[in-house]
Amino acid sequence: MKMNVTQKLISEHLVSGEMTPGEEIGLKIDQTLTQDATGTMVMLELEAMGIDQAKTEVSAQYVDHNLIQDDYRNPDDHMFLRSAANRFGIYYSRPGNGVSHPVHMQKLAKPGKTLLGSDSHTCANGSMGMLAMGAGGIDVALAIAGEPYYIKMPEVWGIKLTGKLPDWVSAKDVILELLRRHDVKGGVGKVIEYYGPGVKELSAMDRHVIANMGAELGATGTVFPADKEVKHFMKVQGREDEFEELTADRGAKYDIDEEIDLSALEPLIAKPSSPGKVVPVSEVAGEPIYQSYIGSSANPGYRDFAIVAEIVKNKHIAQGLSLDINPSSRQILTQLVEDGHIASLLQAGGRLHQAGCNGCIGMGQAPASGRNSLRTTPRNFPGRSGTKEDSVFLCSPETAAASALTGKITDPRTLDMSYPKIKEPTKVDFQKEKHMLEEPSAPAEGLTVELDKGPNISSIPSMEPLQDNFEVPVLLKMGDNISTDEILAGGSRVLPYRSNLPKISAFTFEIVDDEYYERAMNLRNDGGHAVVGGYNYGQGSSREHAALAPRYLGMKAVITKDFARIHLQNLINFGILPLTFADESEYDKIEQDDVLEFSDVRQKIQESYEFEVGIKGKDKKVRVKHSLTDRHLDIILAGGIINWVKNKQESGV
Amino acid sequence: MKMNVTQKLISEHLVSGEMTPGEEIGLKIDQTLTQDATGTMVMLELEAMGIDQAKTEVSAQYVDHNLIQDDYRNPDDHMFLRSAANRFGIYYSRPGNGVSHPVHMQKLAKPGKTLLGSDSHTCANGSMGMLAMGAGGIDVALAIAGEPYYIKMPEVWGIKLTGKLPDWVSAKDVILELLRRHDVKGGVGKVIEYYGPGVKELSAMDRHVIANMGAELGATGTVFPADKEVKHFMKVQGREDEFEELTADRGAKYDIDEEIDLSALEPLIAKPSSPGKVVPVSEVAGEPIYQSYIGSSANPGYRDFAIVAEIVKNKHIAQGLSLDINPSSRQILTQLVEDGHIASLLQAGGRLHQAGCNGCIGMGQAPASGRNSLRTTPRNFPGRSGTKEDSVFLCSPETAAASALTGKITDPRTLDMSYPKIKEPTKVDFQKEKHMLEEPSAPAEGLTVELDKGPNISSIPSMEPLQDNFEVPVLLKMGDNISTDEILAGGSRVLPYRSNLPKISAFTFEIVDDEYYERAMNLRNDGGHAVVGGYNYGQGSSREHAALAPRYLGMKAVITKDFARIHLQNLINFGILPLTFADESEYDKIEQDDVLEFSDVRQKIQESYEFEVGIKGKDKKVRVKHSLTDRHLDIILAGGIINWVKNKQESGV
Repeated sequence: MKMNVTQKLISEHLVSGEMTPGEEIGLKIDQTLTQDATGTMVMLELEAMGIDQAKTEVSAQYVDHNLIQDDYRNPDDHMFLRSAANRFGIYYSRPGNGVSHPVHMQKLAKPGKTLLGSDSHTCANGSMGMLAMGAGGIDVALAIAGEPYYIKMPEVWGIKLTGKLPDWVSAKDVILELLRRHDVKGGVGKVIEYYGPGVKELSAMDRHVIANMGAELGATGTVFPADKEVKHFMKVQGREDEFEELTADRGAKYDIDEEIDLSALEPLIAKPSSPGKVVPVSEVAGEPIYQSYIGSSANPGYRDFAIVAEIVKNKHIAQGLSLDINPSSRQILTQLVEDGHIASLLQAGGRLHQAGCNGCIGMGQAPASGRNSLRTTPRNFPGRSGTKEDSVFLCSPETAAASALTGKITDPRTLDMSYPKIKEPTKVDFQKEKHMLEEPSAPAEGLTVELDKGPNISSIPSMEPLQDNFEVPVLLKMGDNISTDEILAGGSRVLPYRSNLPKISAFTFEIVDDEYYERAMNLRNDGGHAVVGGYNYGQGSSREHAALAPRYLGMKAVITKDFARIHLQNLINFGILPLTFADESEYDKIEQDDVLEFSDVRQKIQESYEFEVGIKGKDKKVRVKHSLTDRHLDIILAGGIINWVKNKQESGV
Repeated sequence: MKMNVTQKLISEHLVSGEMTPGEEIGLKIDQTLTQDATGTMVMLELEAMGIDQAKTEVSAQYVDHNLIQDDYRNPDDHMFLRSAANRFGIYYSRPGNGVSHPVHMQKLAKPGKTLLGSDSHTCANGSMGMLAMGAGGIDVALAIAGEPYYIKMPEVWGIKLTGKLPDWVSAKDVILELLRRHDVKGGVGKVIEYYGPGVKELSAMDRHVIANMGAELGATGTVFPADKEVKHFMKVQGREDEFEELTADRGAKYDIDEEIDLSALEPLIAKPSSPGKVVPVSEVAGEPIYQSYIGSSANPGYRDFAIVAEIVKNKHIAQGLSLDINPSSRQILTQLVEDGHIASLLQAGGRLHQAGCNGCIGMGQAPASGRNSLRTTPRNFPGRSGTKEDSVFLCSPETAAASALTGKITDPRTLDMSYPKIKEPTKVDFQKEKHMLEEPSAPAEGLTVELDKGPNISSIPSMEPLQDNFEVPVLLKMGDNISTDEILAGGSRVLPYRSNLPKISAFTFEIVDDEYYERAMNLRNDGGHAVVGGYNYGQGSSREHAALAPRYLGMKAVITKDFARIHLQNLINFGILPLTFADESEYDKIEQDDVLEFSDVRQKIQESYEFEVGIKGKDKKVRVKHSLTDRHLDIILAGGIINWVKNKQESGV
């Protein structure tokens, strides 16, 4: 069979299932990346699983999200992550070394490999001929532990690029064009694969821009071939020997076909407040702006900054405007410094920030009230900038630079100058560079490393396997559409405790019933409890803490009318029995504080999809069902996936 | 009379009083500076005073403190300050342009002038032959309105510098030596004046380092002569024409005499948690550190960064260590970029932050728990770093650099290298520079500028003059030692409302009685209220909001056993009648909720220092007294200093 690049990557890593779109497949994961906001919990999960050493070829821990240290918690996380990286044999990228995606691409990405990352923009490394995918923290922990990653086999959406980008139009406009055509759900269930004669017109870092924002289309991944441009990129990085060519077979087919003529594109912009609201820049030109923001993993390349520097060189940005420069990697920052571009940006009036995610994830650089902010970042969801009622536009560096000069949204083609040509650096001093990405220690050394836990970092307590017989009171009976925000809120009051399960658990169901926590704690070591919900239980954010925290508080089972998909998976992962009413009308049979009697439940769930649960002292029973696969059953019986992996480790399988 | 530089500066600006140490003198203020954390209230005060145009020669508003924009409030403040600067004819230094003190020195400082700033390190510009003093916000607002600044005539503490600093010892070690000798109260009531042959060995920016930390000695100011070094500094800045020589008369005397032989100094370090706990670096060498921090107004100079760059060049900082580079001014950052020093710092592993105060005032860069942080900043008070139980050492850039390489506190003389010589830039491109410090608009234009108030910025409401007859209930009767923290707390819950008097007032006396606010609000437009306290009322922080907020809530009078000095001044400034019991035993006569009857009070306070206040319905009276000077009386009668200035503006005096 003639295969496209995506099919080659999948077939090379397939450990279970068949390559039929929609079918579940298991994939071997070669590389992982974690960032600090999600990484602390991943490392605590590895600890709880009893993992000695990462089983992947390459795993890397980046510190790029929580760089503002306004108290001890973020720096404590950094120190913990460093110790965990040493302990488990993982690369550690120091704070200040930059955003995970471009740094991974520079230092560790390798054509032909799979990469799983606990960050939704992990797909950016698809620029390197990899199958790179974002996932939840526990999925990445499992991958580090050597477990496959399960997804539905995606459709491959082939996009043929032809022609060459005109002056003043760049890679960002390509992905904005795709968002213009298909909006933010256009890529769901698909891997986007670029091919055709236009691909060679894009540098590896330009492809990163396009692959990164595949996430905004909802795609499973974005794949570019590993061709001469990738080889050149790796050569500059001093890693030419790690290059392997990976291109589609001649005549390979795609599930979906589309074409973009690069030469027909114009500067585009996504209006507030969705990456899918794309229009030509000319349509909104003239709107006054407060801020122009350069950087992030959606425009991380040397050229993305250098082009701005060349446009503003020897000029001044508009009075009152904030031109925020957020370098994406220390390597590129250093090159920009050495080549004079940073000096041009500073002279023009730029504010130079430390290398990292910064304002792209709402960590600083929030815009003033009621003012427009123009950004080269990937997302403009409402409030993501930090300012609740914000007005954020997404655009290319060229558009951001032109607008910084005029103080209003400006089509860069209307500037009175010729399009600057950027000369990329051709060499990186590898020796000078390497210390910022600390190499994993040898396994024997790693075993001796103590995890460095500050006062806000707490190990995940061990959890019991599923009991056969138990009686649990219903601590909450809830209605329909309970979201994970109601189960465990996000926000600045709660999030600082992300690595402290005992503390974060205190916020569980606070919005629904602020006495739940106390009631649950009283029963935690005395049999635990259950809750009852209606339809669509667990909708919303995919946060795992919404299952982990209830489990910590002793939740044994949830009975609902039905579950939101991701929360159901999280309940299974953390060993909470997810049940639905066999007959929905029986929802009315259970009242809050009723005590549910579960008997022979280990046996029952393995034998049948339905069984009965008694209501103590009421001479009533309700009929419940489950939809657990054999793999799910193993996890639930073990008391959750951490135990399941731990058992596997201990039995040496 | 032969005069020293301080005496010359004072006599040139004396508008009232005599130059006898301890006597109150009034000084004409030529220049002011405000920073953003204090400046928003200053600008609201100018608005409330009805000021059209700054009456100073130069006033400048800097944005350097609140640069982290995690929501709309900080950027809104920036925009407000910009509009206010335009409105009142004040220079506006954009965010990213750097810390007020070095930027003021580069752009606006002028020998022979007085400078008053709403920042305690304003004294740094004493390096330029100026009398530069930190003060409260209202004092600076008054100075901008053309009013004199009143202080007690200081003693002049002459410090004769001899010799020349050895290699590896720099200006920071000079001021640390003075702190070693005299601790943090050694300078109270004094202006420190440096003279002698050693002065010429220190560049103008070296003198800034020394003058800056005069604040840590508690000094009223620090004065250096305006000599060739100052002339050279101004020439580099393209401002040679503004230079005027100002040196002590030969044979001038000082109130106190001391000598420092520069050649005898060694690298010093202040241990946690006071700038006065100074020991030789060698005494604590070997202690492991988490962080080395370069920058702040205590080491803002080109050389302070360049020397670190030269020390770490082509080397790597210790693994796991955070080397935080906080540029102090954009001008110097640009020069360091152009000269390759920033590249050296980045290659070695530094984290480059935006130009501003940053971690020096706890805005980011907090250290990890239980770890040592080495900083070139001026202060290491407990928790100032952002980490509550921190461990911060203060030292020179040389010591910070040496320690960054080794990962432990290191005497730089023990490094195996020769002391780098730094070549300072000799020219600034004035044209390229000037747009970052926006020039004040012409008065006529200013009048048309609307103040740009975001939703969290609120004008100060107009306040009534002192009434002649009023009855007010005692809403609180408190004991001894009520601090301004109890009157109005600081901290992250309260401070964000610093420019929003209605909102911040809701926290008033919250710690003492959380129903006070509601009771006071009910009476606010219905006659107001009073409170009663014991000894030392209003001790602690000098924050003006602790008088302004109660006044906003309708507080008419405070009766106590005695007042802390600064809070007494603040009560007068905001028009609250500050009274003490003539007979302290009468404290027991008043109970909470008693209604006090004040009659003919305008007349009584002018006629006598004592008068009687009735207690309604109890047939009792208490005898109270005041200590108001004629100037104070005018202010109290007007209803506070804002009204007092406003009246003066309107009467055109």
